Amino acid sequence: MEVTRTNFAESIEIVTEAIQEASFITIDGEFTGLNISGLNHTGPLDTPEERYHKLLQGSTDFLLIQVGICAFIYDGSAKRYTAKPFNFYVFPRPYTRHAPDRRFLCQSSSLDFLVSQGFDFNKLFREGISYLTPTEEKSIREEIEQRHLQHQQSFYSPGLTSPDGGDQAVPKGPIAIPEEHSEFINSICCKVEDFLTNSEDETLELPPCTAFQRKLLYQTLGTKFPNEIHVQSKSGEKNQRFLVVTRMKGEEELKQREDQKQQEDFDELDRAVGFTKVMKVISQSGKMIVGHNMLLDLIHLLGHFFYPLPESYEEFKLMARCIFPRLLDTKLMANTQPFKEKILMSGLSDLKKTVEQEPFCKPDIVIPEGFGHHYMETEQLHEAAYDAFITGQCFISMSNYLGKFQDPPVVILPPASPLLEPFVNKLFMMRLIDIPYMDLTGPDLKPTRDHVFHVTFPATWRASDLYQLFSPFGNIHITWLDDVSSFVSLTKKESADSVMKSLCKKGTPYRITTYDEFKRRGKERNKRQTSSGHSVSKKRPSSPEDFDIPSKKQKSLNVNAAPFQSRSTPTNTPEKSDPGSTAREEESMTTAGEEQGEGDAGTSSQVENAETMFEVPEAWE
Amino acid sequence: MEVTRTNFAESIEIVTEAIQEASFITIDGEFTGLNISGLNHTGPLDTPEERYHKLLQGSTDFLLIQVGICAFIYDGSAKRYTAKPFNFYVFPRPYTRHAPDRRFLCQSSSLDFLVSQGFDFNKLFREGISYLTPTEEKSIREEIEQRHLQHQQSFYSPGLTSPDGGDQAVPKGPIAIPEEHSEFINSICCKVEDFLTNSEDETLELPPCTAFQRKLLYQTLGTKFPNEIHVQSKSGEKNQRFLVVTRMKGEEELKQREDQKQQEDFDELDRAVGFTKVMKVISQSGKMIVGHNMLLDLIHLLGHFFYPLPESYEEFKLMARCIFPRLLDTKLMANTQPFKEKILMSGLSDLKKTVEQEPFCKPDIVIPEGFGHHYMETEQLHEAAYDAFITGQCFISMSNYLGKFQDPPVVILPPASPLLEPFVNKLFMMRLIDIPYMDLTGPDLKPTRDHVFHVTFPATWRASDLYQLFSPFGNIHITWLDDVSSFVSLTKKESADSVMKSLCKKGTPYRITTYDEFKRRGKERNKRQTSSGHSVSKKRPSSPEDFDIPSKKQKSLNVNAAPFQSRSTPTNTPEKSDPGSTAREEESMTTAGEEQGEGDAGTSSQVENAETMFEVPEAWE
Repeated sequence: MEVTRTNFAESIEIVTEAIQEASFITIDGEFTGLNISGLNHTGPLDTPEERYHKLLQGSTDFLLIQVGICAFIYDGSAKRYTAKPFNFYVFPRPYTRHAPDRRFLCQSSSLDFLVSQGFDFNKLFREGISYLTPTEEKSIREEIEQRHLQHQQSFYSPGLTSPDGGDQAVPKGPIAIPEEHSEFINSICCKVEDFLTNSEDETLELPPCTAFQRKLLYQTLGTKFPNEIHVQSKSGEKNQRFLVVTRMKGEEELKQREDQKQQEDFDELDRAVGFTKVMKVISQSGKMIVGHNMLLDLIHLLGHFFYPLPESYEEFKLMARCIFPRLLDTKLMANTQPFKEKILMSGLSDLKKTVEQEPFCKPDIVIPEGFGHHYMETEQLHEAAYDAFITGQCFISMSNYLGKFQDPPVVILPPASPLLEPFVNKLFMMRLIDIPYMDLTGPDLKPTRDHVFHVTFPATWRASDLYQLFSPFGNIHITWLDDVSSFVSLTKKESADSVMKSLCKKGTPYRITTYDEFKRRGKERNKRQTSSGHSVSKKRPSSPEDFDIPSKKQKSLNVNAAPFQSRSTPTNTPEKSDPGSTAREEESMTTAGEEQGEGDAGTSSQVENAETMFEVPEAWE
Repeated sequence: MEVTRTNFAESIEIVTEAIQEASFITIDGEFTGLNISGLNHTGPLDTPEERYHKLLQGSTDFLLIQVGICAFIYDGSAKRYTAKPFNFYVFPRPYTRHAPDRRFLCQSSSLDFLVSQGFDFNKLFREGISYLTPTEEKSIREEIEQRHLQHQQSFYSPGLTSPDGGDQAVPKGPIAIPEEHSEFINSICCKVEDFLTNSEDETLELPPCTAFQRKLLYQTLGTKFPNEIHVQSKSGEKNQRFLVVTRMKGEEELKQREDQKQQEDFDELDRAVGFTKVMKVISQSGKMIVGHNMLLDLIHLLGHFFYPLPESYEEFKLMARCIFPRLLDTKLMANTQPFKEKILMSGLSDLKKTVEQEPFCKPDIVIPEGFGHHYMETEQLHEAAYDAFITGQCFISMSNYLGKFQDPPVVILPPASPLLEPFVNKLFMMRLIDIPYMDLTGPDLKPTRDHVFHVTFPATWRASDLYQLFSPFGNIHITWLDDVSSFVSLTKKESADSVMKSLCKKGTPYRITTYDEFKRRGKERNKRQTSSGHSVSKKRPSSPEDFDIPSKKQKSLNVNAAPFQSRSTPTNTPEKSDPGSTAREEESMTTAGEEQGEGDAGTSSQVENAETMFEVPEAWE
């Protein structure tokens, strides 16, 4: 069911009911972009904390423009699910002139991708549902109340105080009417005079005029026809503004009119809160929320509809837990035992195909008429509600597969089953080598990185120089940080001990430190910056050491050996590493290229990197 | 005539011809936004240099999405103009995967405004014409050449060197095929075998697969069928990628194929350069370019299609002169003698109405069929080409009016007339009190600001406190800078001398300096920052002293006296100031509220301010 601002008011009850009766809810978002230039989100050696900060800094200036929500309601008698998918277009149109006028980022490739998938941007900008965070709502509500109070005060000294009514100490007289406007003002006064004496109409629309002329008219008509009329500014079809004069029966009616105006302002605010209400209902329901590769979705949902995203990673986890107490990521599930071996490609559309076949079983799901019944037959990938729907389908298939392991086995495993607990509140992290998930409820995994080294070197160095340097220790993977530094990971972890002894010498053109030492120094650097007055919570990355910046070097290297080596698959001696995990790594790294919307705004530069990496030889012998 | 990427190739000749035969060209742009949050472009006391820097920092992250160009061709025999308007949708779609993937800003209110005016965003993202700056073009061209060179080298050691062919020192073997992929790879090999032996087709399309699978296929097919086939990756309708196998007759044909590929890359690059070609033709024509309130258009045109905008204001002027040697701004013309008194509202649509009437004369203009003939009858304000068309109409009307003053008078004044020289290369600056224009060819005007003072004060201060403080010196205007500072201008300039003597005391809660002193210190501050390693060319404003930041205070003041006073119209004693110039100031300050697209992306926060300023008393007695 498509929901825009046109049918939002009448749909909210249907949505609320669906959420409240749901066994679980799936969610998916579409964004105007994925990552700011020069910031790669997905360093293979990020810690979950670093990953959060990269997303916070590099993704949150983009906008969430479509939210798909699908309520899955279990029908015990028919032993099947009913799915109610809702596709919400959301856009922070400045609904009232008191609402914030948001500036946001777009990424060309993402818009290109979305429009190629049939996304309707005209509908978005024209019909998108507004939203406000609770903080924004509160501040606008207070503004309306204050304005009303000021108006009431100003009734007692019209024309003498400024309209704010606050600084009575400074009486201000009216603005003199500049000569060139007097004819116009006089003609309007005659019109109003005529309206009051000869017309039976309740209101009189004045012709569109400039803001200055309106100001002059407010002032002149106010003095000339006190208590007889009410003047209000309105917007015409093409946004031009004009005044409407309404006949009044004295001061009492005028005051009533003011109260009515305040109520209208509150109603308008209520409409502006819009989509936030849906998210509030979902949060308050406490239901399990299922998403596919949902970390970025989660971050956008929290920041757009709840509270500003905290700088502190621990606070972020706390916030996520408070707002969505039960999250489940189907991409993580698909990449974990017992699914890992059975699901080669965990991109959403591939996953759907896989879990419709043996050993899985396509679940029986009904979408009622009027709720996107066509989803049953036609694929509409990257329409948020469709993606939410098939995420739910995948979740049910995988859950039911787990049911086979229960004693006695069950055909349909409920979402509250303890068998699902290992997956709850753990989010998949794209392209991370040794940490499979972000754990929202506990401390994150901390695999040893003793075989990883940080190396700085001259800008002229290429991958080959690093291979040469490390040749005594077997094969390596390079993770470029910038033109002059990289992480180097040994395939033979047991060689790690001898690296520092052999390579850490004076007078070399490179400098080498262990991973742990490098991180320790980074923390100290941050501390020093904080204590010397620099903010660590800067919104933009400024130090190349902090992030994987695709630098000029990498650009010039895009047909080069380096990117092939910055992966967990050692190309020299693959047979020596665990082939299972190798394939898995490769897969999880490359699937993004397949399901471009999974992150979820189409071609990202990450995708491009993946493409470049595996696609470069467009021809060969 | 609407031009998108669909008809761009066939239209470029028509456009070029129109530009080359034109007497003058008008131009107009539509943007995704006007100004970043918290940065007001239009301080009433900006210098032209400051104004340039504000626009550079606050506007250039937005995108120019529609360019209207109208060629006006004089027909001497019929004594009238033929107008050829072109409406270009432009969008920096990453045309090739080597093209930059641009991130850009949008402003909600601007998109809302544009869509309300009928702007088609789906057409923009789907059909917008690409563009590249000359620098981008050059770098991509070099990349293509280098890639081709590397491919040629790699012919001699297939499978042993990495595809970049650069680091031959490190031979790399093929990637082992992970077990779970071997069935798929084998099935494809059989398919290709079958294609080579049993099919008569030239090409074979392989099923869509992941980037990793494509990588494996490149490698396996390359070893298995050397010189027999060429493999290329293509994008399907829904952006999924697949491989196409083409039958080859040996190494020679493969090399030819490579050359062909390079040519295709160059052709693709040529299409990606797209709209930049039109701007190049215009620049090279040296024709007079006319715009309405065109400073922001100019900045966007230069930055998008020519070179990065320089930090130095003088360099910007030089760049503008080199690229567009003859510019004329109709808004400046309308606000200058002898038009100033006859044109009350200089917003484009108001201006059009005014100059169609006495003492002006609506010019006879013909739009040929197929070139937007409907513009003659129907208004399509804020469609860039329509705006460009009526800008030209206004220019002709005003020019011809000047013709009356020639001796002997002429009915049609040519754009090269010396009577127009006073207006050439001078650009209107919105809402500036005492400097009417930016002069691109000479030093800017430097009016004395001896009657202006910079005051810092406690955050609790309101307008009334400043009025009280300055009460001995007559009426004042306040220009808020932030919560704790403002400029204060005296209406009675002759009182300026005594201000410092009376108010500059020890132990006061405020601090006061003259405008000149404040500016001098600002320059020194900048110098110190530069010499201490801080860049002055930072892209974001960081110091509140530098700009007019609409702060919390101003927000809370939006129903307040302050904004009323930050204008050049003293509300206390208007009769004491020059009523003519007062009206003019008010007008030029408020027209933006009327013609929201003039800046040119709809409602801006400036506009909102103007609205707030004059609209607040929505009701009164």
